[in-house]
Amino acid sequence: MKLPRHLAIQNGHLYINGQDCVALAEKYGTPLYVTSEDRVVEQFENYKKALGARYPKVQVLYAAKANGNLALLRALAQRGAGADVFSSGELHLALDAGMEPGRLLFNGSSKTPGDLKLAVEKSIRVTVDSLDELHQLDAAAKAAGKTTEISFRVNPALTVPTHPKIATGLATSKFGIPHKDIPGAYREALGCKNIMPVGLHCHIGSQILDIEPFARATEVMVRIAKDLTSMGIQLKFIDLGGGLGIPYRHDTDPYLTPEDYAARVVPIFKEGIEACGITPELWVEPGRSLVADSTVLLTRVNSVKSAHKRFANVDAGFNLLIRPAMYDAYHEVIAANKADSEPTTDYTVTGPICESGDLLATERKLPELAAGDIIAVLDAGAYGFAMSSQYNSRPRCPEVLIRGSDVALMRRGETLSDITATMERPPWQK
Amino acid sequence: MKLPRHLAIQNGHLYINGQDCVALAEKYGTPLYVTSEDRVVEQFENYKKALGARYPKVQVLYAAKANGNLALLRALAQRGAGADVFSSGELHLALDAGMEPGRLLFNGSSKTPGDLKLAVEKSIRVTVDSLDELHQLDAAAKAAGKTTEISFRVNPALTVPTHPKIATGLATSKFGIPHKDIPGAYREALGCKNIMPVGLHCHIGSQILDIEPFARATEVMVRIAKDLTSMGIQLKFIDLGGGLGIPYRHDTDPYLTPEDYAARVVPIFKEGIEACGITPELWVEPGRSLVADSTVLLTRVNSVKSAHKRFANVDAGFNLLIRPAMYDAYHEVIAANKADSEPTTDYTVTGPICESGDLLATERKLPELAAGDIIAVLDAGAYGFAMSSQYNSRPRCPEVLIRGSDVALMRRGETLSDITATMERPPWQK
Repeated sequence: MKLPRHLAIQNGHLYINGQDCVALAEKYGTPLYVTSEDRVVEQFENYKKALGARYPKVQVLYAAKANGNLALLRALAQRGAGADVFSSGELHLALDAGMEPGRLLFNGSSKTPGDLKLAVEKSIRVTVDSLDELHQLDAAAKAAGKTTEISFRVNPALTVPTHPKIATGLATSKFGIPHKDIPGAYREALGCKNIMPVGLHCHIGSQILDIEPFARATEVMVRIAKDLTSMGIQLKFIDLGGGLGIPYRHDTDPYLTPEDYAARVVPIFKEGIEACGITPELWVEPGRSLVADSTVLLTRVNSVKSAHKRFANVDAGFNLLIRPAMYDAYHEVIAANKADSEPTTDYTVTGPICESGDLLATERKLPELAAGDIIAVLDAGAYGFAMSSQYNSRPRCPEVLIRGSDVALMRRGETLSDITATMERPPWQK
Repeated sequence: MKLPRHLAIQNGHLYINGQDCVALAEKYGTPLYVTSEDRVVEQFENYKKALGARYPKVQVLYAAKANGNLALLRALAQRGAGADVFSSGELHLALDAGMEPGRLLFNGSSKTPGDLKLAVEKSIRVTVDSLDELHQLDAAAKAAGKTTEISFRVNPALTVPTHPKIATGLATSKFGIPHKDIPGAYREALGCKNIMPVGLHCHIGSQILDIEPFARATEVMVRIAKDLTSMGIQLKFIDLGGGLGIPYRHDTDPYLTPEDYAARVVPIFKEGIEACGITPELWVEPGRSLVADSTVLLTRVNSVKSAHKRFANVDAGFNLLIRPAMYDAYHEVIAANKADSEPTTDYTVTGPICESGDLLATERKLPELAAGDIIAVLDAGAYGFAMSSQYNSRPRCPEVLIRGSDVALMRRGETLSDITATMERPPWQK
């Protein structure tokens, strides 16, 4: 199996960033998320470099939803990253991590009055998703005696090759304002005293393994930019939304790089803005492609069962990694302590959750397994811990971060007290 | 819309157990889970009564995974409920709630060495899912100088009318031991010095709206019981697994009652065990049917948008109720503050999460909505908060419990500190 360069097989064990996964599992216990900070930084720099080489005014906003651990946000903040934030919580985390307010964008289709107030207070730009929200934001800015800069989210009505649940630019998606209504929305914004429209935003979906939809979206965006410019809007930024999909199937999926993306998209962008006679910043919001492959989820085999097929029952399930159960997503798995043994047997790797859908991997050739073996689930850094739950009253596992040869916890494991901490006993039960 | 009797519409507002949902939303904020303890107790008593009227030795084990709040476990424990537990966490909670160890059963297809050790220590019966697990449990019991009582989980290879992810008795499911291998498994258990096989367990799935599959499973179980009895196994209990589905579609789904269940299943059970000449306890494990309809999720409209269709963007999404996004599940929704207004408009009720699949309800006739309105999502008591996450760095909401005219928090709302509490700062980031 092809491996990214921070993963390696040595002496029969899987290594990540020079660390033996089996030793990490012993030291910290399982299940365990292990992330290479170096890999995250490398992927971020790849975006900055590829885009920056072609256009001078680029901002890379990390889609914080993919993995909201402060340690990752801090590492990215130090390299000048901004963030696409989707909630007040993500906004606070991004600021706590040291990101500059001017490099943050408050996205989302359903913001509370509290979200809008916070954005105004902290002078964070907001992507507005509806006229209703526009007027609420205007009122919030007025109440604070401030002017808030906004973009609108365009629904480009593009069909893209990904899972329907994460195709966010379909005509029928909940996100954005239909293309044809966009000029009207900006006109309405121009009429709001405490709103300044300065940007244009779209997002066509996640886990897209084809550059062309991004090219199409860029064409739509610069066409709209032209209309807006002729309306007198001075665009400070155009945000092309999410980044690339990643090759979850290591040996068959296409490997798209930020270089491929920039080479296809930036020329369209440049031609478009030159036609408008403007030089807005180019913003992108990669999430998955920055963090997914940085991380392995280590899980221990509890038991092996031969029934209608052969099962390896492990200690991590969709409580910790919901993508296979929710999106039928594919993740590569490696027997971390038998990494150079012959794969002889088809195993279905199942978690401990009370549902038949709790399968991490289905019918994969692996070496003969036994209780105690360590399975590494690859590419678990995006939408892994971020979507975790305490389902079946299971405390969530720790997360370890590696930089260079240093290893440290970036999240301790929970105990049952973390689950009961928020429970209150009604007085009549005393 | 048909409503269960703990829900009512008065003066244009939705009431639960005599409490105004709109007032609760004002007092505690939104999103908010609100549960009627009285309703949970009523549903539990319905099971006990219906089964107990037909067979004297009945245990109702609450499937704690459906809703693991200690307040519910306590309310059920006081009425003599046991629990089907699926993890060490659920086992601890059930004991903390005051349930008797003899009324607990440790189920699950993937138990850790720690789970097995805990079950042995606390003298909890274990449903064993594989021979591998059997021998691990035998070793754990030996190490503790104890004998552990077990059942095996039979895979009855039954196809049932429910979502494939929660059909747990399919031939290809990860759960249980194939029917034909069951006698061999019990023989193997008889050979284990520290194991005593005393039960038989199955579970055919969740949200089944037809009695017949339960009848079929019962036939399979008593047939196996006969084989086991002739092998000399003395069965103390036969556990028929999960309970009934509930009518999520209030006006079109069938309403099945514990009475319907008992009337169909108990005669088959009795005939079967009489043929064996045994009188084991009859165990059932309802979860959803005890708690689902006890609870509403109250969520506030943040904004309304007309795009390709009309959206009501609310403040609860699949972070709090994942069933619609994960299983395309249907939940009834009611405008709690306009509950007797004319439903005039089709709304798609969407949450604040960054995915197109974050829809709580699709194209439902509701009264004209505006920001600030309160939507009640019905039947949210099972697999609601239990499967919640902090996705998009959203603190989870509080849960309120009502008994008679008393109202109290059974869980406080989280803040961002609850999300960051487990994060650790790697030393190199200091």
